[in-house]
Amino acid sequence: MTDPDFLRPRPANHQPLTPLSFLDRAAAVFPDRLAVIHGDQRFSYRDLMARSRRLASRLAGEGIGKGDVVAALLFNTPPMLEAHYGVPMTGAILNAINTRLDAAGVAFILDHGGAKLVIADAELMPLLEEALALATNRPKVICYADPTAPGGREDGYEPWLAGGDPDHAWSWPDDEWQSIALNYTSGTTGDPKGVLYHHRGAALLATGNIVHAAQGMHPVYLWTLPMFHCNGWCFPWAVSIVAGTHVCLRAVRPGPIFDAIADHGVTMLCGAPIVMSTILAASPEEKRDFPQRVTFWTAAAPPPETVLAAMAEAGFEVTHVYGLTEVYGPAVVNEWHDEWNALPAPERARLKSRQGVRYQALEALDVMDPETMTPVPADGETMGEVMFRGNVVMKGYHANPSATEKAFAGGWFHSGDLAVRHPDGYIQLKDRSKDIIISGGENISSIEVEEALYRHPAVALCAVVAKPDEKWGETPLAFVELRPGAQASEAEIVAFVREHLAHFKCPREVVFGELPKTSTGKIQKFELRKRVAG
Amino acid sequence: MTDPDFLRPRPANHQPLTPLSFLDRAAAVFPDRLAVIHGDQRFSYRDLMARSRRLASRLAGEGIGKGDVVAALLFNTPPMLEAHYGVPMTGAILNAINTRLDAAGVAFILDHGGAKLVIADAELMPLLEEALALATNRPKVICYADPTAPGGREDGYEPWLAGGDPDHAWSWPDDEWQSIALNYTSGTTGDPKGVLYHHRGAALLATGNIVHAAQGMHPVYLWTLPMFHCNGWCFPWAVSIVAGTHVCLRAVRPGPIFDAIADHGVTMLCGAPIVMSTILAASPEEKRDFPQRVTFWTAAAPPPETVLAAMAEAGFEVTHVYGLTEVYGPAVVNEWHDEWNALPAPERARLKSRQGVRYQALEALDVMDPETMTPVPADGETMGEVMFRGNVVMKGYHANPSATEKAFAGGWFHSGDLAVRHPDGYIQLKDRSKDIIISGGENISSIEVEEALYRHPAVALCAVVAKPDEKWGETPLAFVELRPGAQASEAEIVAFVREHLAHFKCPREVVFGELPKTSTGKIQKFELRKRVAG
Repeated sequence: MTDPDFLRPRPANHQPLTPLSFLDRAAAVFPDRLAVIHGDQRFSYRDLMARSRRLASRLAGEGIGKGDVVAALLFNTPPMLEAHYGVPMTGAILNAINTRLDAAGVAFILDHGGAKLVIADAELMPLLEEALALATNRPKVICYADPTAPGGREDGYEPWLAGGDPDHAWSWPDDEWQSIALNYTSGTTGDPKGVLYHHRGAALLATGNIVHAAQGMHPVYLWTLPMFHCNGWCFPWAVSIVAGTHVCLRAVRPGPIFDAIADHGVTMLCGAPIVMSTILAASPEEKRDFPQRVTFWTAAAPPPETVLAAMAEAGFEVTHVYGLTEVYGPAVVNEWHDEWNALPAPERARLKSRQGVRYQALEALDVMDPETMTPVPADGETMGEVMFRGNVVMKGYHANPSATEKAFAGGWFHSGDLAVRHPDGYIQLKDRSKDIIISGGENISSIEVEEALYRHPAVALCAVVAKPDEKWGETPLAFVELRPGAQASEAEIVAFVREHLAHFKCPREVVFGELPKTSTGKIQKFELRKRVAG
Repeated sequence: MTDPDFLRPRPANHQPLTPLSFLDRAAAVFPDRLAVIHGDQRFSYRDLMARSRRLASRLAGEGIGKGDVVAALLFNTPPMLEAHYGVPMTGAILNAINTRLDAAGVAFILDHGGAKLVIADAELMPLLEEALALATNRPKVICYADPTAPGGREDGYEPWLAGGDPDHAWSWPDDEWQSIALNYTSGTTGDPKGVLYHHRGAALLATGNIVHAAQGMHPVYLWTLPMFHCNGWCFPWAVSIVAGTHVCLRAVRPGPIFDAIADHGVTMLCGAPIVMSTILAASPEEKRDFPQRVTFWTAAAPPPETVLAAMAEAGFEVTHVYGLTEVYGPAVVNEWHDEWNALPAPERARLKSRQGVRYQALEALDVMDPETMTPVPADGETMGEVMFRGNVVMKGYHANPSATEKAFAGGWFHSGDLAVRHPDGYIQLKDRSKDIIISGGENISSIEVEEALYRHPAVALCAVVAKPDEKWGETPLAFVELRPGAQASEAEIVAFVREHLAHFKCPREVVFGELPKTSTGKIQKFELRKRVAG
């Protein structure tokens, strides 16, 4: 049965989904609510809206419009929040660049993304200048000198913004499929890929955050997760849904984190496990008491039992989420069951270490044989590739049709992550496809070996990679960073792992020392592989 | 800039929004959670999913598929919840019929909507049979004999359902614009209109409920609002998002309401003001103590100060929402500001009586001159028509192109409600277009007069309508229902109103007695007008 024409979508009953709607509403309903705290600065929702409109008017004045790219090389400061609204208000696409890339990496993105304008933090201007010397693109540059940072450069952002129109007539997207953001993957192999988000996905993921976080109205959100990482998992937009307060944080350091929690009543923060380590390693002088329970969302690696216990003791409730740049950040959540609270701590940690189930905003999640595209049995043992399908899967890779087609083969997004599905439907990562170790024809999950290592009390961080071996093909090699003051020998570590795992899975060698990490706190296994190869 | 073809929507990254996704997820993640309580019956999410699939398989077996209509003439019982999932699982449209209509009203809907099958409560079978005698449509009838109701008829629902396939391969909608529900307006003038909802709007409104209710995971929702009313404002779908528990309730009576709250830990319920009156009028034997604060959402009329105070005292937090069948129920919410809690009770009640601001899921709300389509000034005085625009506005009126075009004229849905916009942007209803009283050329808002009447301690319910007058054209006439045991004379009431309103707005006559009400608790002004005319 086909609908008659008068039942077609039209302006009265069909509007593009967009996160711009969230700020529009918050500024109209709660204009006097505190939207942003940064050092001594305070911006209400009226201010944030006016500043975003000023930015949009300035960008429009530069000839920037629908489909153009505006880059941001910024820390978690107010201009980054404003860019999340002001840029799409012109129809343009926000390209938030990882601030820890080298000049060549930044140059690649500026050329590939084609940004017409870059807003950059003064501290990052030398990096940008070096990148521009390598790039062919010649974007206009606006330098933001953060008042909370040591001076040096003159601020070009505030005077420029001040000349913008606070009542600028911004426009909604023409279509919810219109691009809103361009986020480059870290590109551990080959060139980084430019992941495109659209307004529809950003609005739905942000709303999903609110459903899952269940913080109620007016949460206080601390910016420990970089906003260049999946647009801060879409929280710059999500917080407006509930007219919450953003607490900006230029750098992840324990003192300022505790100060923000105690002084501003922070209710939630997110980050990689390194943020939890930072919190737990705070000195007594840095630590502060606070009365509220704080929600902490962690991603990138399962939280070990000892960390979970220490975080609970310190006043934090940890939720484990999982995703990739291609799925707007957290598209999988370790949905907790109340009855699990009665279990012993190791069992709780085991359950918490699983990545979990689909986000409310994701339509389907499965673990499949990528050859046959059939789901693996939910036996907790059979490995397959994690596949995503739904409205919070990227639009595609910018200017990269072949990578896009490959990623979407068979009607699902192929994550490249290997996992099992447990009988209760929860998925658990076992490895990146490329991180699996094949020894004597047997697959060894490097994550499984790492989990065994993490149970050793002296192990702070670890990574297991394949070492070429004439007899076995590959064998597991462990890199271990010990806790400050802790000691353990190679023999002791190997013996410990053998108590927990089959012998063929156990590392034969252990290398001690600090581990290389990405800008988002992930351990850089490719660096370790280079060391093994070198 | 147009996107290249490889960035088009495809199955991996674009799936129809649908509330069916919510039950699918709840049943997968929380299969053992209690989904439905009805008398002695308990259904888990696994059960609710299996029962919905059985229903879908049975409907498919009857040849029912995409675009077909299935009617439900049911109280707030499990089959009604199952119909909200099982019917759209086949691609069909759920037509929940008001159980308090007369046979002619039901017959009109069965013929106009063209239901192929009707599921009817045994107690309503005589009504249905009378309706079918008047109708030309000959749908298949399934009779549901509720185990909590007095017997008489044989149950045809459970045996029929039992023969369905609990693993039936149900299908997602092909398109999110596909119709999911058909709800007839009450049709106080002319024939009722059949409002069509689509999957997209139902999913977004339901998610909006979760954002605004902010109940967290696993709320316990009591069914005091009829599910035939805007699909219970979409809560049959919303509750699945957070894997909550539905507590069914065949009839709105004070004892069972308090029992449910105390025995099942109800956290939320909704209803017209009549439900609040029912709660407050409970006898000491019917009342029960309960420890939790219960959220109550009321619509249809602003809650008077005395009712708000009494509800707070009784353990309920009242939220005022507003909408119409055409906007899926509550598309406007009296969003509360924390600082208002410090105000004196009358001021709080005044603020609470305003309908409020757009729902998170509605893209635009305005008060406009319907001739020029320009917004009225936000001065709290200039009246205009309430206009809606967004994704939770109906698809249109079934088989009624002219009414649809009229309703969507100028790119907005015309509500027919008259309101003002206050300086803070909150809207306040002043009247239905047709309820305005024009006396001596001056517009009198019947709602404003009623609000003055409600301040009188003896007034339980009231309604003001126009009485034809040779000199003035019309004058306001008040109908008043006094509180049990209370007394007041006509002269006393008129004098009281004159203390609060300009004289030309005050009723000259007061008629005492019980007021006629619709099935959803709204006062039937057209009945009162008939009395005035007769």
